[in-house]
Amino acid sequence: MIVRRAPGRGAQSCPGIVRLGCVEQNRDDNTYAFQRLRELRGSIDNIDASLVHLLAERFKLTERVGELKADHGLPPADESRETEQVARLRVLAEDSHLDPAFAEKFLAFIVAEVIRRHERIAESRDS
Amino acid sequence: MIVRRAPGRGAQSCPGIVRLGCVEQNRDDNTYAFQRLRELRGSIDNIDASLVHLLAERFKLTERVGELKADHGLPPADESRETEQVARLRVLAEDSHLDPAFAEKFLAFIVAEVIRRHERIAESRDS
Repeated sequence: MIVRRAPGRGAQSCPGIVRLGCVEQNRDDNTYAFQRLRELRGSIDNIDASLVHLLAERFKLTERVGELKADHGLPPADESRETEQVARLRVLAEDSHLDPAFAEKFLAFIVAEVIRRHERIAESRDS
Repeated sequence: MIVRRAPGRGAQSCPGIVRLGCVEQNRDDNTYAFQRLRELRGSIDNIDASLVHLLAERFKLTERVGELKADHGLPPADESRETEQVARLRVLAEDSHLDPAFAEKFLAFIVAEVIRRHERIAESRDS
């Protein structure tokens, strides 16, 4: 169990009268803070690894979508699909306490990369 | 098993002499294409849901990091940590066949949001 310390404790300067004990206390606080920081960063790193692997799979799928559309003469953009995706992601974001505006921005960021890749595929087919 | 069709088949116009059979063939091709598209989009939607949930967890963790740093007077930015993160993500990206430059851009996109949130927390503490 992680015991939450009082805010600002580690950052406070030691009053002269209890200087030695306070230095000790600050050292303990800093040890705790760095340990907790290491734990949190470990979890962030695990999540980042999962994100990278999921993104790699997502781009494989969108590449297959791009090829399928090119093979069957389907239009590259599909506005109704994109509208649906945004609406769905915003709901999912709300449910998981993620800012829906950020979720939408995130999708736009990914879609921009998908378009960049599709253009690269189209260029290599044309040349 | 998914049978890969010849490129461009569905998009070709029908030669007059075999018009009826060809219309039928095009219809089959389009049915196949839309079915496959639906499958791929279903997988993309599942991945997007996972991405949103992971991002929600990541922001919870970075919020705890922000609070911990503020509580213990640790500096908000840590250049060596960020350099390590970029190097690690680039390796993970290469291993999973994701463009390492994109992985780096993705991390920068997330970190920008983290900074935006930390600033918002700091503002709310100051006010």
